[in-house]
Amino acid sequence: MGILKKIKLPSDIKKLTNEQKNQLCSEVRKEIIETVSKNGGHLSSNLGAVELTVAVLSVFSPPEDKIIFDVGHQSYAYKILTDRRKSFETLRLKGGVSGFPKIKESKYDSSTGGHASDSVSMGIGISAGKKIKGENENIVAITGDGAMSGGLVFEGLNNIHAAGKMIMILNDNEMSISDSVGSFSNHLSKIRSTGGYIKAKRGLQKFITNLPVVGQSVHDALVSSKEAFKRAIYDHGYFTDMGLDYYGPVDGHDIEGLCRVLSAAKENRAPCVVHVVTKKGRGYSFAEKDPCRFHGVGAFNKASGRMLSERKETFSDCFGEYIANKGGENHKICAITAAMTDGTGLSDFKKSYPERFFDVGIAEEHAAVFASGLALEGLIPVTAIYSAFLLRATDEIIHNCILEKKHMVFAIDRAGFVGEDGETHNGVLDVSVFSNFPGVEIYAPASFSELKSMLDEAIDSFDGIAFVRYPKGSETEFTKGYKYSGNPYDVLSSGSDTVVITYGRTFSSALEVLAEKKADIIKLNKLSYVEDIAEVLKIYKKAVFIEEGNKSGGIAEKLGRKIAEEKIDIDYKISAIEGAFVPHMTIEEAFSEYMMDKEGILKTIGE
Amino acid sequence: MGILKKIKLPSDIKKLTNEQKNQLCSEVRKEIIETVSKNGGHLSSNLGAVELTVAVLSVFSPPEDKIIFDVGHQSYAYKILTDRRKSFETLRLKGGVSGFPKIKESKYDSSTGGHASDSVSMGIGISAGKKIKGENENIVAITGDGAMSGGLVFEGLNNIHAAGKMIMILNDNEMSISDSVGSFSNHLSKIRSTGGYIKAKRGLQKFITNLPVVGQSVHDALVSSKEAFKRAIYDHGYFTDMGLDYYGPVDGHDIEGLCRVLSAAKENRAPCVVHVVTKKGRGYSFAEKDPCRFHGVGAFNKASGRMLSERKETFSDCFGEYIANKGGENHKICAITAAMTDGTGLSDFKKSYPERFFDVGIAEEHAAVFASGLALEGLIPVTAIYSAFLLRATDEIIHNCILEKKHMVFAIDRAGFVGEDGETHNGVLDVSVFSNFPGVEIYAPASFSELKSMLDEAIDSFDGIAFVRYPKGSETEFTKGYKYSGNPYDVLSSGSDTVVITYGRTFSSALEVLAEKKADIIKLNKLSYVEDIAEVLKIYKKAVFIEEGNKSGGIAEKLGRKIAEEKIDIDYKISAIEGAFVPHMTIEEAFSEYMMDKEGILKTIGE
Repeated sequence: MGILKKIKLPSDIKKLTNEQKNQLCSEVRKEIIETVSKNGGHLSSNLGAVELTVAVLSVFSPPEDKIIFDVGHQSYAYKILTDRRKSFETLRLKGGVSGFPKIKESKYDSSTGGHASDSVSMGIGISAGKKIKGENENIVAITGDGAMSGGLVFEGLNNIHAAGKMIMILNDNEMSISDSVGSFSNHLSKIRSTGGYIKAKRGLQKFITNLPVVGQSVHDALVSSKEAFKRAIYDHGYFTDMGLDYYGPVDGHDIEGLCRVLSAAKENRAPCVVHVVTKKGRGYSFAEKDPCRFHGVGAFNKASGRMLSERKETFSDCFGEYIANKGGENHKICAITAAMTDGTGLSDFKKSYPERFFDVGIAEEHAAVFASGLALEGLIPVTAIYSAFLLRATDEIIHNCILEKKHMVFAIDRAGFVGEDGETHNGVLDVSVFSNFPGVEIYAPASFSELKSMLDEAIDSFDGIAFVRYPKGSETEFTKGYKYSGNPYDVLSSGSDTVVITYGRTFSSALEVLAEKKADIIKLNKLSYVEDIAEVLKIYKKAVFIEEGNKSGGIAEKLGRKIAEEKIDIDYKISAIEGAFVPHMTIEEAFSEYMMDKEGILKTIGE
Repeated sequence: MGILKKIKLPSDIKKLTNEQKNQLCSEVRKEIIETVSKNGGHLSSNLGAVELTVAVLSVFSPPEDKIIFDVGHQSYAYKILTDRRKSFETLRLKGGVSGFPKIKESKYDSSTGGHASDSVSMGIGISAGKKIKGENENIVAITGDGAMSGGLVFEGLNNIHAAGKMIMILNDNEMSISDSVGSFSNHLSKIRSTGGYIKAKRGLQKFITNLPVVGQSVHDALVSSKEAFKRAIYDHGYFTDMGLDYYGPVDGHDIEGLCRVLSAAKENRAPCVVHVVTKKGRGYSFAEKDPCRFHGVGAFNKASGRMLSERKETFSDCFGEYIANKGGENHKICAITAAMTDGTGLSDFKKSYPERFFDVGIAEEHAAVFASGLALEGLIPVTAIYSAFLLRATDEIIHNCILEKKHMVFAIDRAGFVGEDGETHNGVLDVSVFSNFPGVEIYAPASFSELKSMLDEAIDSFDGIAFVRYPKGSETEFTKGYKYSGNPYDVLSSGSDTVVITYGRTFSSALEVLAEKKADIIKLNKLSYVEDIAEVLKIYKKAVFIEEGNKSGGIAEKLGRKIAEEKIDIDYKISAIEGAFVPHMTIEEAFSEYMMDKEGILKTIGE
C-alpha cells in the first residue's frame, strides 16, 4: 500500500518498477471501487482499463502528449493519476469531478466527450494540426470496441491519411454496454479466437522480450520482420485496408507487455492501431461476473455487490414490460435498440421475439434508416434510444422517416435531466429538433399508466412519426396511477387566475402547486397541439410554462410565438433551461436549480 | 431508333436481345442528355448508370423487387424505364418529375432519398421486414463509391446479418462529386488496378460464358470454385470481412456481363455485393472529359457542351475567392469540405494551400469533429458544407464543437431555397437547430461584400462557433455592393408604422418594399441578437418577419416569444415556411409561393 499516495503526476509513474506499477493498479482499482460504491458511476469499463492507463502514462507524457478517451467510460484511472486523486471522491457530485473527460476540468483532459465513436476523428484533427505547426507530440486515441460500430469511427479511419503520428488504442473488452454486435465485432473475435490472439500473445512477447525496451529498433524490427510473422501479429485485414499499421492483440492486463508494444507504436511515424484485449470489471468479482449490471451503477455495498437503494420500477422498466406484452398481441411490432438492450428495458422483448428484435450497436443513424425500411414493409418499428443520443440520427429521422410520413414509433428514454452523467447526457434537446416537422407527434407521459396508454395510441391508431418521451427514473407519489385522458391537453382547475403549463415529468411539481390552489394546470399530452392552448389562456391573467428542456427552440417558445401572433393579453413567463448544457448534479438538484420543483414554480408565479 | 418508345414497363425490357438492350441504352442516354440540356440536372452520374439500370431491370422486377438508389444521382434512366418516359421532360420542373427517387411519385421508387449513404441501411430494413413476413422478393441497393465514405454505410454493413437476401451494387465510378478520397477509396482502386480488375474481368467473363445464364448453378459454381479463383474475383478483404459475398469487379457498360453477374447474385440467399465499374458521363464526350462540371448543371447547348446562361458570380465563388486570399494572410486558416471542393468554391484554396486543405469525403460528422481537433491546436478551421447536409453532423457540432466553445467557422452554403433539387436539398433547417445554443453566432449576409466582412469578423474577432450562411446563386441588383454595418442589426427607416424584419437573401425583397415606402426594415446581421429587436418594435404598429426557413423553430418564432414575454403591443406576423419540406421548383417560384418576393411581402403587410 501507499504507492498511489506518492503519485501526483504522470512523470511519477515513469519512475516505478513493473512490480510497483502492478501494485499501483491494485490501489487505483480500490480507489475506483471505493468511490463508485459511494457516488455511483461507470464501474466495469473503468476497472478494465487500469493497467492500460498506467501503461499509457508510463510511455506517454500528457498534457504535451494528447490522450483522448472515446466516451470516457474508461477515464477514471486516468483522472486519478493525473492530479485528481484528492478530488476524485467528488466524482459525479455537483461541482465535483465529472464522470467524463472535460477540458475545463484539467489540462490533462485533451477533449470533452461523452458520445461514442468520436476519438479517432478528434485525434486526426489534433494530429493534422500538429503536422501543420511542425510539432511532434504524440496523440493517443483510446476507443472501446463497442464504439467501433459507430459510423463516425469509420469516417475517421477513412481519413487517417490526414493524420501524422497517431496511435489508436482499440480497447477490446468484447462488449460495448450490452454485448457487441455486428460484422466488425465478429471480425475482432475471429482475430482473438482463431489462433490469432494466443499465437500473437506468445509470439509477440517472446519476440519483444529479446529486444531493447524502447527506441526505433523495436519498431523497425516489428515492421521489417518476415512477412509471415508480420501477418500473424498485425496484418488483420480491416485496419491495414484502412491504412493503419496494426499491433496486437495484446493482453490488456500485462503492464510490461503493454509498455513494450506502446513504446514500439510510439516510434511509428505513421498512424497505427494497438489492439488491446481487456476484461470488463477486472479485479472486482461481482463486476467481472455481471459487467452489464455494473456498467453504470448507483451506490452499492462493496462487500456484497448489492445496490444500496432498493430498485424502484423505472419508466424504462415500464416500457420494457409494455412492449414485451404488446409484441405478443401485435406481431408487426419490431423493437430496435442501439446498444442499450438492458438500459431501455428490451431484454424481455428480445427473449420472447428474437426474430423481431434488433440491436444495431452504437449506430443511431442506421437504427433510424433501418427502422424506416421495416416501416416500408408494413411492420411497426419501435426504436428505443436515449434522448441524448437520438440527435446522432437527426438527418436520418428527418429525411428517411418524417419526410415520407411513415408509421414509426421512437421511444425516447432518459428525456429531460439525467443527473450525474451531466451535460453530454441530458435529454433536453430532442423536442426542439423534432417538434418542428409536419406529421410528427411527441407524446409526453407523466406516469407509467400514461406511458402505456400513449404507446398504445402511437402504435395502434396514430399514423405518422410518433415520439414517446419519458424520463430517467420513476413516477412520483403525485403522478402514480395518473391516467391518460386521450386529449391533446388537459386543464386542471383550482379557480386560479394563474396557470402553469407543462408536459411530462414536471407535471408532478405542477400538481403540488395545484394542491395549494396557487395555480391551474394545462397539461400538454401531445406537443403538436401546443398552439391550441393559446385560446385557453384568454381566461387567465398569468401563465408560466415549465419546460424540462432547452428554452431556445422549445415548446414554450412556440406558445410564446402564438401568443404574440394572436395578441393575447396575458403575462407569459417561461421557466426552462437557459444555455442548453446542464452540468452534472442530481436530478433533484437540477429541478431546484432550474426552478422546476414546487418551490421554484411558486417563486416564479410570485414574481 | 425506336426501341425506347415501345418500352413502358420493366417487363418489356426482359424480352429484348442484348443488341436491342444496347440500342435501348443509347436511346435512354439521348433522352437524358436532351432533357437535362433543357431543364438542368445531374448528368455525369446518370449517364454512367444507363447499362447498369437496363441490366438491373433485365434481371429484377420492380415494384415487387425493391430497387433502392443511394442519393439518386443515378436514377434518371430508371425513371425513364419505369413508366415515366413521357413525363420525364418535366424533370425538376414545379409539379413535374423529381430529380430524386420518391415513393409518392411512383410505385417503382422504393425509397425517398437525396442524402448519401442510406441505401444499405434502407435495404437491410426492407430485407429484414420481408424475412419476418416470409416474403422472398429481391432487394437491390445501388450505392455509388462516393457514398461509401459516409459512416452510415459502414453502420449498415456492420448490421448486414439482419438482412436476408439482399444485393448491394457498388457503382464504382472512381469519384463521388469531386474525386473520391480516403482509405476506402484507395482500397477500391487497389482492387481495380493491381491485377484485380483486369484479371477478374477476363477470368469472370470466360468463366461465366461457359455456364448457364441464370440459376442456382452459376452461383454455386462461383462460390464453390477453387479457393484461389474465389479469392481472385471476390474475396477482397473489406466486404468479406463485413460478411458479404463479393462479386466483381464487373465492367459496368457491358450489359451481357452485368446481367450474368446480377443473375448469379440474385440466386445467392445471403447478402452480397456486386462491384461494378462505370465511367461518369459515359456516352457524352463533354461530360466524359469533365465529369465534375457536368455533375449538376443548368441548361446547356447539347452540341457545344456550353452552358446557356452566362455564369454569374455566386456566393460560393465569392466565398472561395475570399478564403483563398485570407488563407494567404492568416496561415492558421484550414479549409474543410465534405466532397464538395468545387461546389463550395474551395478549389483555389486547395491549390494554394494543400497542406491546410482537407476534403474528408461525404462524412459531415467526421468533418465537424476533425475541425474541432484542429481548433484545439489553435488553428482556425473553416468548414464549408451545404445547409441540407450539415444536419448530418448535428450531434457532433453540438457536443464536439459548441459545448467546448471553440473558435471554429462553419460556412453554410446553399442556405435557404435551392430550387430544382427540392425537398431533400433545401437549406431551411440549419437555423432552427444551431441557433439554440450559447456561444454561437449565425451571420446572415445579403451581399458579397457582407459575406466577406462577416467572414472577416468570424475569423478575426469572434471567439466561438460562427456559422456564416449564404444562399445558392448570386446577390441581386438591390443588394449588390451592400456593406456590412458591423452592427448586430440595422434599422432602415422610411417613416412607416410597419416594419419588415428579415435576414439574409430576403433582405433584397424587403429593400424593394422599402423603396415604395410601404415599410421600414430591421435587417438582422447576427441572429443571436434577435431578442434585442423587441425593444425597437415598440415604435411600430405592425411587424412582419420574413424568414427563408422553417417557421417552426425559426428565428421569427424566438422574436415572437420575446414579444409575448415583454408584452409588447404590436401586430406580429410571420411569413416563413410552414411544414418544413419545400418541393422542387425554381427559387423564384418558391419566393412567390412562400410570399417572400416584393409582391408577397406587400400582400402580407396589407392583410
